[in-house]
Amino acid sequence: MIAVVIGAALGLILTLLGTPVFIRFLVRRGYGQFVRDDGPTSHHVKRGTPTMGGAVIILAVILAYGATHGVLMLTSDVARGPTASGLLLLLLMAGMGVVGFFDDAAKITKKQSLGLTPWAKILGQGTVGVLFAVLALQFPDSRGITPASTAVSFVRETALDFAVFGTVIGAICFVIWANLINTAATNAVNLTDGLDGLAAAATAMVTAAYTIISIWQYNQTCGGLRAVESVCYSVRDPMDMATVAAIITGALIGFLWWNTSPAKIFMGDTGSLALGGALAGFAILTHTQLLFVILGGLFVIITCSVILQVAYFKLTGGRRIFLMAPLQHHFELKGWAEVTVVVRFWIIGALAVGLGLAIFYGEWVLTQ
Amino acid sequence: MIAVVIGAALGLILTLLGTPVFIRFLVRRGYGQFVRDDGPTSHHVKRGTPTMGGAVIILAVILAYGATHGVLMLTSDVARGPTASGLLLLLLMAGMGVVGFFDDAAKITKKQSLGLTPWAKILGQGTVGVLFAVLALQFPDSRGITPASTAVSFVRETALDFAVFGTVIGAICFVIWANLINTAATNAVNLTDGLDGLAAAATAMVTAAYTIISIWQYNQTCGGLRAVESVCYSVRDPMDMATVAAIITGALIGFLWWNTSPAKIFMGDTGSLALGGALAGFAILTHTQLLFVILGGLFVIITCSVILQVAYFKLTGGRRIFLMAPLQHHFELKGWAEVTVVVRFWIIGALAVGLGLAIFYGEWVLTQ
Repeated sequence: MIAVVIGAALGLILTLLGTPVFIRFLVRRGYGQFVRDDGPTSHHVKRGTPTMGGAVIILAVILAYGATHGVLMLTSDVARGPTASGLLLLLLMAGMGVVGFFDDAAKITKKQSLGLTPWAKILGQGTVGVLFAVLALQFPDSRGITPASTAVSFVRETALDFAVFGTVIGAICFVIWANLINTAATNAVNLTDGLDGLAAAATAMVTAAYTIISIWQYNQTCGGLRAVESVCYSVRDPMDMATVAAIITGALIGFLWWNTSPAKIFMGDTGSLALGGALAGFAILTHTQLLFVILGGLFVIITCSVILQVAYFKLTGGRRIFLMAPLQHHFELKGWAEVTVVVRFWIIGALAVGLGLAIFYGEWVLTQ
Repeated sequence: MIAVVIGAALGLILTLLGTPVFIRFLVRRGYGQFVRDDGPTSHHVKRGTPTMGGAVIILAVILAYGATHGVLMLTSDVARGPTASGLLLLLLMAGMGVVGFFDDAAKITKKQSLGLTPWAKILGQGTVGVLFAVLALQFPDSRGITPASTAVSFVRETALDFAVFGTVIGAICFVIWANLINTAATNAVNLTDGLDGLAAAATAMVTAAYTIISIWQYNQTCGGLRAVESVCYSVRDPMDMATVAAIITGALIGFLWWNTSPAKIFMGDTGSLALGGALAGFAILTHTQLLFVILGGLFVIITCSVILQVAYFKLTGGRRIFLMAPLQHHFELKGWAEVTVVVRFWIIGALAVGLGLAIFYGEWVLTQ
């Protein structure tokens, strides 16, 4: 438990103090965001705000993770170092962040808003995603539990297990499935970005939920002192997952301090892809893949708005459902103030997280 | 558990749909807020925004509470009606709201920002507070547990019990102590109000925390199926407390939809006194009085800023620590945008709530 508190505090402090330093560094070098020309025209005033803020978040999370385990190993009787699950999550987060970084860098050097080619992005994300998924099936602990499971999970593993197809094909199916989750999550957070503070706070709500879920999985881990065995969880390293989730939550809150309206910095694709990767990692490593669709309800709604808009546009040969997609820009164009859209979307995000947590806990209570 | 979900949904829907109806009603009658002349001059544009929004919150909470128990009694095998604790909390909330309502009404009819005289306010709050405290020591359940305890509580009852002074003096001490908590909480929420969405969301975070705390107390109630007996809780009606807390959280979120920047309605003293009463009620009835100081850290900081400002002003014969108190106006005058102050204060509120929950759960984990 103490690791969760130390981690959250370190993540918070590092971004709270590190972000303004990074802003000064970027401004001095003249790196600003080139706001999409097809976004709302009111956003053109944002031209010049530095981006790539995600780099601070990623660095803060890695530093805080190292420092937290440093403190634990120095002070604790039982030496508690980093775990396979924790390191895998950081790998996925940082790997996706690097892809996003190249995207942001391409935008800045080309002085326009497009970035990497779609294929380069897919190749980069796919490489990181496959590496993560393959490694996540290695490293069994003393009980034989690997960080990820080949079974599809809702609030815990379901009976639907890719392993029925045999070890190799089962593993391949899992790698494809994990990459589907990765791609969906990274694109969803990427689409949700674009209004001051929107993506940072919405993601923090989900990582806060994963802190609670992981603490609960630790508390009720099979064989645990206070666990109810009939509803216990078989997850590798739940306390370290809680620590990483708390670190990311803290780092996001510290970043939000500077990113809220009017934003002094944007997270950029560096941030949104890294955070999407982190969320996908939590869904996979805590064995709550389908619950993640509910917890991340806001991201799902925003992604669906884009899919619907594009599909309808193509089907009807040029008609639109929304004034603009993703959904947040639709409401801006309808005349809502930017902060009104942001806070109302946070409300929707918080309700989705609340519903997800209620389902997670309700399953534990109601299962005999 | 289902009561918590139904209650939260009903509270949310009632304010989400009810608030715009109430706004139209107020606007048609020409009732607007008369913004304090000693507040920041930028607030003068807010003149005319309707107030007394707290009335919608109170009505929604009472209706949702009745409807939730109606649904439970119709559908559940075990008829589960309202509880003493739930009704007492509503009494305190609504009673304080009525005092606030008279204050708001006085402001509107006098067409200025002062409202009730201080003594009238203290008399009103004291009457409601004493009634609540006296009743909260009645109604023992089958185990002999009354809604409130005469013991001072931190995360649970401490050894410091007013009952050592005898039944009568102990009860009197408790009534005084409970009124101290009431007065502190109502004034603190009142002082925190004043920026769009600030008090509503900050209070919702604390009531959400009390939803979690009460669910946990229910889950770990002494004699419960899955309770660890060495660290169980002796609280009357924890599930109904969770239901009321969820209803208020839902109602506040629905209200926030309209109250966020730019606010279409203010909660007024009707709202801030009612919510302060509700928070004090949760602290007393869930036996977490001192933990409440941490959970409500944002309110404590803002209240301290006023106390410090006034004390320093009097001691130095006219000098000030802050440009203006309460603290939120200090940062506005320093040039922060209103929404920046609001979101950053929400961040502080959320951190305080997170710390409070960590302490509450940590105590349970670490106690042998």
